[in-house]
Amino acid sequence: MNKKMHLYILGFLLRIEAAFMIPSGIISLVSQEPRAAAAFFGTSIFMLIAGTLMSHRPPQNKTLNTKEGLRIAATSWVLLSAFGALPLYFAGIGATYLDCLFEIVSGFTTTGASVFTDVEILPRGILFWRSFTHWIGGMGVLVFLISITSFSSGSLMHIMQAESPGPTVSKLVPKVKETAKILYTIYLFLTIVQILLLVMGGMPLFDSILNTFGTAGTGGFAIKNKSIGYYNSAYVDYVIGIFMVLFGINFNAYFLLYSRKIKDFWKSEEPKVYLGIIAAAVLTITLNIHQTSYDSISRAFRDAFFQVSSIITTTGFVTADYDAWPQLSRTILLLLMFFGACAGSTGGGIKISRLIIYFKEAKRAIKQFAHPKAVEVVRLEGKTVDNETVSMANIFLIMYFGVFIASVLLVSLDGYSFDTSFSAVAACLNNIGPGLGAVGPTGNYASLSALSKGTLIIDMLMGRLEIFPFVAFLGMRRGR
Amino acid sequence: MNKKMHLYILGFLLRIEAAFMIPSGIISLVSQEPRAAAAFFGTSIFMLIAGTLMSHRPPQNKTLNTKEGLRIAATSWVLLSAFGALPLYFAGIGATYLDCLFEIVSGFTTTGASVFTDVEILPRGILFWRSFTHWIGGMGVLVFLISITSFSSGSLMHIMQAESPGPTVSKLVPKVKETAKILYTIYLFLTIVQILLLVMGGMPLFDSILNTFGTAGTGGFAIKNKSIGYYNSAYVDYVIGIFMVLFGINFNAYFLLYSRKIKDFWKSEEPKVYLGIIAAAVLTITLNIHQTSYDSISRAFRDAFFQVSSIITTTGFVTADYDAWPQLSRTILLLLMFFGACAGSTGGGIKISRLIIYFKEAKRAIKQFAHPKAVEVVRLEGKTVDNETVSMANIFLIMYFGVFIASVLLVSLDGYSFDTSFSAVAACLNNIGPGLGAVGPTGNYASLSALSKGTLIIDMLMGRLEIFPFVAFLGMRRGR
Repeated sequence: MNKKMHLYILGFLLRIEAAFMIPSGIISLVSQEPRAAAAFFGTSIFMLIAGTLMSHRPPQNKTLNTKEGLRIAATSWVLLSAFGALPLYFAGIGATYLDCLFEIVSGFTTTGASVFTDVEILPRGILFWRSFTHWIGGMGVLVFLISITSFSSGSLMHIMQAESPGPTVSKLVPKVKETAKILYTIYLFLTIVQILLLVMGGMPLFDSILNTFGTAGTGGFAIKNKSIGYYNSAYVDYVIGIFMVLFGINFNAYFLLYSRKIKDFWKSEEPKVYLGIIAAAVLTITLNIHQTSYDSISRAFRDAFFQVSSIITTTGFVTADYDAWPQLSRTILLLLMFFGACAGSTGGGIKISRLIIYFKEAKRAIKQFAHPKAVEVVRLEGKTVDNETVSMANIFLIMYFGVFIASVLLVSLDGYSFDTSFSAVAACLNNIGPGLGAVGPTGNYASLSALSKGTLIIDMLMGRLEIFPFVAFLGMRRGR
Repeated sequence: MNKKMHLYILGFLLRIEAAFMIPSGIISLVSQEPRAAAAFFGTSIFMLIAGTLMSHRPPQNKTLNTKEGLRIAATSWVLLSAFGALPLYFAGIGATYLDCLFEIVSGFTTTGASVFTDVEILPRGILFWRSFTHWIGGMGVLVFLISITSFSSGSLMHIMQAESPGPTVSKLVPKVKETAKILYTIYLFLTIVQILLLVMGGMPLFDSILNTFGTAGTGGFAIKNKSIGYYNSAYVDYVIGIFMVLFGINFNAYFLLYSRKIKDFWKSEEPKVYLGIIAAAVLTITLNIHQTSYDSISRAFRDAFFQVSSIITTTGFVTADYDAWPQLSRTILLLLMFFGACAGSTGGGIKISRLIIYFKEAKRAIKQFAHPKAVEVVRLEGKTVDNETVSMANIFLIMYFGVFIASVLLVSLDGYSFDTSFSAVAACLNNIGPGLGAVGPTGNYASLSALSKGTLIIDMLMGRLEIFPFVAFLGMRRGR
């Protein structure tokens, strides 16, 4: 175990987070929120000092293996969350540290589940920090670190693998650092385009930036109590709805477009399946809710599209109370919560590419029955998926349900209905945000017990890092 | 494809079913139910003729491969159900053929979900047939066929594998036919003991036999509207409760006891885990419901034990309205619905041995992280589980959720609450019977649409035969 390197990277990350807090501090100052400003600058300075002490000198041995990459990812995210919650705690908004931690973990993991019943009274600096954590967490803070440091490619790849969602990570270019830079460039470009489009539609700049952060990270923290429904604008709904879909696509696809590999782009399987599922869900829900709750088919389509896009990408923005929709639509949305977006995007959930692997594995088994002697392999994106990847995808599913079951049992101690306890875990483990029932689009997580909040904090982190980093951590304790 | 052999076995089965109908016909006669008697004898004679024509001459080539075994299992069960529903349809109880089919599939698959709102007005012959199908379906009609025919062991093994629940089937003795005979002997022995115990407790003989059929097959058809709660007797609750647990144990364990291999018996992993889960669930639920709904801890324990035993074994007998219990208890029961009993028992669900495989697979992955160079294998009952079995268990899980998701979507078209549509599929796919909400312990399946009933009929069959036989059937159509 390369402990020096581990400590060095954690220190480096604290310094990055300290820098990330400065804009929120400045906004607090400009908005004349002295206590929030003090909380941001105070925490930032403390982190800068602690981080500098920890990462004073780069270690001689910079090599890391897979396991170490996973452990660094796990500890980094816990540390970032623990410190990231401090400004909220010190800003004098009357929240307990647990609530602040829940909120910031929800931010970094791009879940978007909130414990605040009235977000409109929060200081602007705090609102900015909450939404900014979505943007940072979406692409990954370790990926950011990689893009600005210069360690050996091999070690960085392990860290990037640990933080990136999905069963496989492909390097876009031979150098990991360059890959990270390209990813952040695409991310920044899409972010800027969305902000411009929202401003052009008449949304205030502050709102445009924060709502874009929530979209880009597929996080979904609302800055209005009615979420995006507040703006009551078809233009806003469609811009954000389309950008949610875009941020849920595998960033590799954008890289192929960027590098003009149009042929390869069209061959990509995952985005096609992803868009196909969205189209089918939107169509079914539109027809279903049009029959029962909507007079206008165009409004039904608009609300269906926004909610499907928000839930499959695990963003969690809301423009309609889908909890009151007919059962078929609610069931489809609940399923989409589990599906999630593409691997290598900012979205959560099980990921479309894993679903494709599961589906193909089942298909292979069926074929094997018909032709017992044929040797069939699972292929994805034209490449053979090796047994190791298939096996890891299966183990992921097993662990995922294990965590899910344990969490539902703990949360059900609160005595809420089946809808609530089940969907609260689904919404946090899949990094969505709102669920059904008491934690539905018109509710929030404030009323849950400390035990439930603690469970859901762990679920959000497990969901964002896809369980394995924490498992590697368990392994360490047992293995040594 | 050995079509002659396929046809021959189907014909043989029809003759067996024709014979199985005779007791019900006699009971109808004795109970002065002429129309039911005519329905039974009429169907029986028709099946006897059809069956004899089909299995007039044994085919020369009696060999069968795995795939053919699976296909025979699938077609047999569909055929038996289609014919088994006829007496109900012709008995003049005013039910549609779809409802009769639902009821009998529910019987053979030992689900115990009923479409009859008032079972107490049903003719006694019909009641007997319903419950008798549980007993036949529990151990498996093909296993029965094997025990009385004399084909080559290899071919029979494939059929037995296809019908027996769980990831692996072990032959108790070298000859498959002897294995089948031993299984039925143990089954019959336990059945007779339970009938005697119930009669000794003062239950009428007719009720004792029928309730024992429901217990032995882990079916759960009630012959009273209040299910076992009708008898309102601690003795009855404990006898049936304990026998449900016993019928949920892998029959291999009884064989080890029977052949005095006490050492091997104590080494069996699955029964221990199974009993451990039951103990933990009963304890937790007792404490949970004692706090909220029960004054007496002994009554809370009795109801908790009965309901846990009924649900984990997928029987579905009811003595308390668990749908009104606190959320933690309801959640535990819902989980147990999925767990199911031991492989090689009469129970349904995912099966404890598969859960053990999943758990060990996850544990192996964790160890692998800690010691990347170590080679770990999954072991069950002291034996290494081969990759093929692990892989099939994974594929089972994937197909299981695929079927589950598709079914929930179809059933949710009926517009019932999430509890109802979700638990209706869970209760049918896992062969339990009652679910939550409208299909809960105080409700039934009568009010569902034809589409939902059709979906659930398929789910029950898929659940009993563990999906693969139907998949092999799909393979045939596609593969050729």
